[in-house]
Amino acid sequence: MSQTDSGERLTAKGNTAFVEFEDGIAWVTMNRPEKRNAMNPALNDDMCEILDTLEYDDRCRILVLTGAGNSWTAGMDLREFFRAVDSLSPEEQVRQRRSAEMWQWRKLRTYPKPTIAMVNGWCFGGGFTPLCSCDLAFAAEDAQFGVSEVNWGIIPGGVVTKALEELMGSRDALYYIMTGETFDGVEAARMGVVNKAFPADRLRDRTRALARTLMEKGPAVLNAAKVTFKYSHLMDWDTSAQFIGAKGAQLRLIDPEGIRERAMASFLDRKEFRPGLGAFDREGE
Amino acid sequence: MSQTDSGERLTAKGNTAFVEFEDGIAWVTMNRPEKRNAMNPALNDDMCEILDTLEYDDRCRILVLTGAGNSWTAGMDLREFFRAVDSLSPEEQVRQRRSAEMWQWRKLRTYPKPTIAMVNGWCFGGGFTPLCSCDLAFAAEDAQFGVSEVNWGIIPGGVVTKALEELMGSRDALYYIMTGETFDGVEAARMGVVNKAFPADRLRDRTRALARTLMEKGPAVLNAAKVTFKYSHLMDWDTSAQFIGAKGAQLRLIDPEGIRERAMASFLDRKEFRPGLGAFDREGE
Amino acid sequence: MSQTDSGERLTAKGNTAFVEFEDGIAWVTMNRPEKRNAMNPALNDDMCEILDTLEYDDRCRILVLTGAGNSWTAGMDLREFFRAVDSLSPEEQVRQRRSAEMWQWRKLRTYPKPTIAMVNGWCFGGGFTPLCSCDLAFAAEDAQFGVSEVNWGIIPGGVVTKALEELMGSRDALYYIMTGETFDGVEAARMGVVNKAFPADRLRDRTRALARTLMEKGPAVLNAAKVTFKYSHLMDWDTSAQFIGAKGAQLRLIDPEGIRERAMASFLDRKEFRPGLGAFDREGE
Amino acid sequence: MSQTDSGERLTAKGNTAFVEFEDGIAWVTMNRPEKRNAMNPALNDDMCEILDTLEYDDRCRILVLTGAGNSWTAGMDLREFFRAVDSLSPEEQVRQRRSAEMWQWRKLRTYPKPTIAMVNGWCFGGGFTPLCSCDLAFAAEDAQFGVSEVNWGIIPGGVVTKALEELMGSRDALYYIMTGETFDGVEAARMGVVNKAFPADRLRDRTRALARTLMEKGPAVLNAAKVTFKYSHLMDWDTSAQFIGAKGAQLRLIDPEGIRERAMASFLDRKEFRPGLGAFDREGE
Amino acid sequence: MSQTDSGERLTAKGNTAFVEFEDGIAWVTMNRPEKRNAMNPALNDDMCEILDTLEYDDRCRILVLTGAGNSWTAGMDLREFFRAVDSLSPEEQVRQRRSAEMWQWRKLRTYPKPTIAMVNGWCFGGGFTPLCSCDLAFAAEDAQFGVSEVNWGIIPGGVVTKALEELMGSRDALYYIMTGETFDGVEAARMGVVNKAFPADRLRDRTRALARTLMEKGPAVLNAAKVTFKYSHLMDWDTSAQFIGAKGAQLRLIDPEGIRERAMASFLDRKEFRPGLGAFDREGE
Amino acid sequence: MSQTDSGERLTAKGNTAFVEFEDGIAWVTMNRPEKRNAMNPALNDDMCEILDTLEYDDRCRILVLTGAGNSWTAGMDLREFFRAVDSLSPEEQVRQRRSAEMWQWRKLRTYPKPTIAMVNGWCFGGGFTPLCSCDLAFAAEDAQFGVSEVNWGIIPGGVVTKALEELMGSRDALYYIMTGETFDGVEAARMGVVNKAFPADRLRDRTRALARTLMEKGPAVLNAAKVTFKYSHLMDWDTSAQFIGAKGAQLRLIDPEGIRERAMASFLDRKEFRPGLGAFDREGE
Repeated sequence: MSQTDSGERLTAKGNTAFVEFEDGIAWVTMNRPEKRNAMNPALNDDMCEILDTLEYDDRCRILVLTGAGNSWTAGMDLREFFRAVDSLSPEEQVRQRRSAEMWQWRKLRTYPKPTIAMVNGWCFGGGFTPLCSCDLAFAAEDAQFGVSEVNWGIIPGGVVTKALEELMGSRDALYYIMTGETFDGVEAARMGVVNKAFPADRLRDRTRALARTLMEKGPAVLNAAKVTFKYSHLMDWDTSAQFIGAKGAQLRLIDPEGIRERAMASFLDRKEFRPGLGAFDREGE
Repeated sequence: MSQTDSGERLTAKGNTAFVEFEDGIAWVTMNRPEKRNAMNPALNDDMCEILDTLEYDDRCRILVLTGAGNSWTAGMDLREFFRAVDSLSPEEQVRQRRSAEMWQWRKLRTYPKPTIAMVNGWCFGGGFTPLCSCDLAFAAEDAQFGVSEVNWGIIPGGVVTKALEELMGSRDALYYIMTGETFDGVEAARMGVVNKAFPADRLRDRTRALARTLMEKGPAVLNAAKVTFKYSHLMDWDTSAQFIGAKGAQLRLIDPEGIRERAMASFLDRKEFRPGLGAFDREGE
Repeated sequence: MSQTDSGERLTAKGNTAFVEFEDGIAWVTMNRPEKRNAMNPALNDDMCEILDTLEYDDRCRILVLTGAGNSWTAGMDLREFFRAVDSLSPEEQVRQRRSAEMWQWRKLRTYPKPTIAMVNGWCFGGGFTPLCSCDLAFAAEDAQFGVSEVNWGIIPGGVVTKALEELMGSRDALYYIMTGETFDGVEAARMGVVNKAFPADRLRDRTRALARTLMEKGPAVLNAAKVTFKYSHLMDWDTSAQFIGAKGAQLRLIDPEGIRERAMASFLDRKEFRPGLGAFDREGE
Repeated sequence: MSQTDSGERLTAKGNTAFVEFEDGIAWVTMNRPEKRNAMNPALNDDMCEILDTLEYDDRCRILVLTGAGNSWTAGMDLREFFRAVDSLSPEEQVRQRRSAEMWQWRKLRTYPKPTIAMVNGWCFGGGFTPLCSCDLAFAAEDAQFGVSEVNWGIIPGGVVTKALEELMGSRDALYYIMTGETFDGVEAARMGVVNKAFPADRLRDRTRALARTLMEKGPAVLNAAKVTFKYSHLMDWDTSAQFIGAKGAQLRLIDPEGIRERAMASFLDRKEFRPGLGAFDREGE
Repeated sequence: MSQTDSGERLTAKGNTAFVEFEDGIAWVTMNRPEKRNAMNPALNDDMCEILDTLEYDDRCRILVLTGAGNSWTAGMDLREFFRAVDSLSPEEQVRQRRSAEMWQWRKLRTYPKPTIAMVNGWCFGGGFTPLCSCDLAFAAEDAQFGVSEVNWGIIPGGVVTKALEELMGSRDALYYIMTGETFDGVEAARMGVVNKAFPADRLRDRTRALARTLMEKGPAVLNAAKVTFKYSHLMDWDTSAQFIGAKGAQLRLIDPEGIRERAMASFLDRKEFRPGLGAFDREGE
Repeated sequence: MSQTDSGERLTAKGNTAFVEFEDGIAWVTMNRPEKRNAMNPALNDDMCEILDTLEYDDRCRILVLTGAGNSWTAGMDLREFFRAVDSLSPEEQVRQRRSAEMWQWRKLRTYPKPTIAMVNGWCFGGGFTPLCSCDLAFAAEDAQFGVSEVNWGIIPGGVVTKALEELMGSRDALYYIMTGETFDGVEAARMGVVNKAFPADRLRDRTRALARTLMEKGPAVLNAAKVTFKYSHLMDWDTSAQFIGAKGAQLRLIDPEGIRERAMASFLDRKEFRPGLGAFDREGE
């Protein structure tokens, strides 16, 4: 990673992604605009590096994932990820695939910090994996989404099929998987693929506002809450009760801020704070 | 339980909840309006008592769960359920938690009689557990919902995270879990948290109408239908076929009314009844 | 199966269903219009025969399932499937039920060719099983849907409960299971029961257009894509990655058209094809 | 199926398997001894035919599956099932595989009548699928077992890997999967692959005795008991309780002999029968 | 519950079970020896009462479950649990079944204190549920076990089938389910139904010794360890890691003895204690 | 990694583990003998490095994991992994735990090359994770095993509880989890914790012989076989069939040796090879 003089920008080794810091937000940009930010092996390695770094960088309190130019990402790079990898040794093929999956979901789905996908444009195929892995997602109304794998003879691979299954109802998912049709940000919001869609020129502001809302909450709390949610999906209720109870206790043990006790005191003893109406003021106390 | 002279009202021991009977409907009201009906240990015990009693009380054919004043329930009582319980012995803590979960989901989710949540107002945090456990739910359009745990340093505990996972899509659920924002009844209906939202002044009438519709059906049938649905969620199709087949046979064995055979006779032999257009008239035959 | 002279129509032995071929589309029609196409044992046997046959008939590239007259299907035939079967020997009962489930979901859910339910009218009870099993579904706006089992004393049996659980959110599903109310095609589309609803007079055209879109894709690709989706539902992400990876490789091994390599060449080498905008032209190359 | 004059023997169309009836036992013999009863497409079709027939043949109360000559089965036939099938059309490949899986586990695992694998000799590879599917299994002490797929470049396919996972502990299963070593009947019994091993010359007598024990029980009871067991494997306890309860009720509804009530009367009222010590005498009453 | 003068014995209301306290061990005895301790409704109610009481009684640090006379338990009482219950109202039937399952597994499987089944004799049918629910089990070598349900026309109901599935391999379980044969304590130990079998006259001493070993450990630790084990069964590895990590943290938060830190100090700082060779001396420090 | 002159030995950076190459076997030795090879952060990092390296090192065809001195590993290092880590920042704690789990199971369980645990002595607590992750395991008869966590106030953490659940029956696992007692290699073999136990002085020879057997097989085949087995555990049969079929096809696509076709030719055409009796001679052809 190389850093600018001002310390406000990091560029990954492969030069395919960079980070800009702004008041606690790390804007992570996939940066191969001439290729619609298609994810080639270099970009996958760069994103691994960035995620590893930001985990320990205090300037990043919220991670926003976006793309350079008019695309988010066109998915896996056909030339470099598919055709070139096909001719590598089995070991090297494994290495390339592992790098892709490491950042796109193994790390990202339970990333220690909150993550927001800001889908500024084109989002296709393999792009649905990091999209789904981000905790929250905002899109431009005119962003184009598509699962076009069927158009060129493959299935939505990696874990795209699983990502679609998590985000969309069965009917919607199979429709787009089988027809390869595109849809825009408004439709994406309707189907639950993203949280909300906004006019393109308001997207960054709305994303910034969401990030600020998240920054009001305790980081340990946010992480425990999202991980608990993501793991309770395939559990029956009885197991969920065990799991959620344990996660709640774990949070009490490890929250360095002790928000629970402080907020209860503020609410119960001093009547200063009402939980239903906003976050406990962690610094202002 | 103490009963009024007219026999139309039961009040639980702890005085935090009561039941009113009206033509087969048991209107169960959480009754700590000054605390927005927050669920403290007394209320949890009272609700256990009420559910145990109504199971065997013929005046209750449909159970409607609502709240006194302008709230449904604000969730678990911070002072009495969290702070006070923290200082109890481990055994006593277990006892308090068990009482909460016993009525909120262990009993309620498969309650022998149909259950309707009538969300008249404020519904927060722990309130989502009984909300999700009720078979059906109607809300006032201006009812306020929120998962505000993150605001005061905890995760949506008990089984609230699981309840959200069952009711909402992933995107919606994580949004409200992580931002702690509120939403109203209209939005709740859009997301599937409740079946429908109505203007507050029509809520009770619409709920009563729904209850009456349910009363036209056989109680054993309704119970078998809902339990079968709630348990088939994590089953693959092959296992579902086994399970659903067995539940159907079990219903034939135990339905004291023998509706299946009588309705088939009415439809097939006497052409009196058309299943697609309404319930078989169990008494009017 | 008997075939017309022109070779454009097959009629199943029991005379309760027939197939019309039209430019790659096999229009399969349940044909007991006087009984709203209720599925009796003869129809179940006929549908098994049709599915077995079409699997190996090149005239069928896309299977559309519809109903004669103003109904899709009224569900299982009460007289012939329930009452008559009740009095058969246990072995014969098993045989009847097996025939029903064989075509309605065991075969249909993973049918080698794409399947579209074209819901032209009345769709009740047991009809939800083949409806859910079809990959995609279009409905007439005024088609009537209902899960009316509760009205005559049974639960949504076979695997109807599971089908509802797959297609609808929990709130919607339990509402219709417990009230037995009907809903129309517009509502069905809103809830995800069908992909889209159209005015009745445009239904066939829109279905034909969808079928043609599917015919542009490789059949082996479509099949691998849909089967992968349908089986990933109960898998965690880590297992999904293994499964999806293997399915992708399997497709490369077995696709007789080798679309993946040809499409990559067209896109990467000759710049003739853009995957995001349409299907690779498999014949036109 | 062709039948001998005496009516005691059925031979399947393809001549690769036959059935001998003896006092309620149907001895089903895979009969390609010169190929160690390797399962080729003809044998798979024959076994489908036999299973379909015996389901409705009263002479079969217990099905015993064994092999001609000194083998049980050498697994899938390499020449006819693998090499020949490789060159078929995709549709025909599917048909061959479906025939194999239909009898080997889809039908056999939940066959309406009790099934016993009598492993008289060589049992390899694909043979583990029907072996595991049979409810019970006895082996000759000197029978040879092996999962030798790894020796010729494939994985234990079909569902052999799953069958091994069901029958053996993890360590044992992976050892034999990865080394391809053989083991004998004694070792098979120790590991739980078969119930017991006997000297070869006593195998048939012991199998006959087991079959007779099973014939003392009610057929509907045995079927319900085994199916319930086989489906409860992946269920948590709470779901199991629902499922098992429903299966028990279903049995009460459908048992044509009504054994439960008759046996209770014999035990409770007449003190004639003690359930712990033997089966209720269904005919002798 | 009535207590003796010396305070060393509690007898449940229904007089069908009692407790004797001895140095931290609560010997709980099912006491209907003339009925081989068959579990009738009274006994189920009594056992519920006993489990509720002992949870908060400091004299019980380890619970041992055994039977009076020469039986552990003959399973559910045919006359009182089956025949008599059959004629009750549906509500009352539910109540009886709920009482049975409440103590036999819902409470017992995760009981806050360690539990040992001491199988002194006859253990049949429904007895396998509490047997499996106890954390550990010792048996007399000549104790007789049997799943004799098939002998009188029912399946191993309640959750007996699930209990067998948890304790035994598939082959063993189906053998005993389908044949109804009995087996003794030695065989039970071989199959994993109990931990060990001893000559009858040494059974109590060996059980006492095991209880004493358990009393050396921290109660909160033992409970967390066993609950974690019992819930990880149906989890994949990735989910297990989340769950087990949370349970470990929860234990650190709630262990009133703080054994982890004290034992580490003893081992690391003072070299007094070696974890591999025995329990940390919680009082002797 | 530093390499010796002869190129036969690699030592990891932290000097806590090394590799010796011998005829295709990579003997990986945990090397903190004075601490019984307890796994501290340095060792975890070293093992990550070693596994990453060996994946691409042709000298390693089989990986054997063993320990220096008279121990395999005493588990996680109490001083360095527990006490020291407790005082680190949350981010650093996460990093340490991730390093441990990365090599112990995330990488090791599906390692591209076959793995054998050679348990030469002491194996405790956290050591059960890599023990279970290795495909196969041989132990010295006098090796000592123990799950002693309960002795010092913690549960079997990381994923030890899951590893025990996979390797042992429920009774055995809970016995050792709750008593903390030790057992030797003979008992470990009996319970399925290891494949076999040998006298200590024959352990290395027997391990070498096993490794040589594995080297006769195709590496791609072995990997596909073991991964398929490890992932089919929580799948129902129907899903297994889909998954196993896809894995088999994937292997055909990627096996660089094409063993399947060559071995079939050798067996079917030239009668040179018999699959049941040994591996196809991949080089000798």
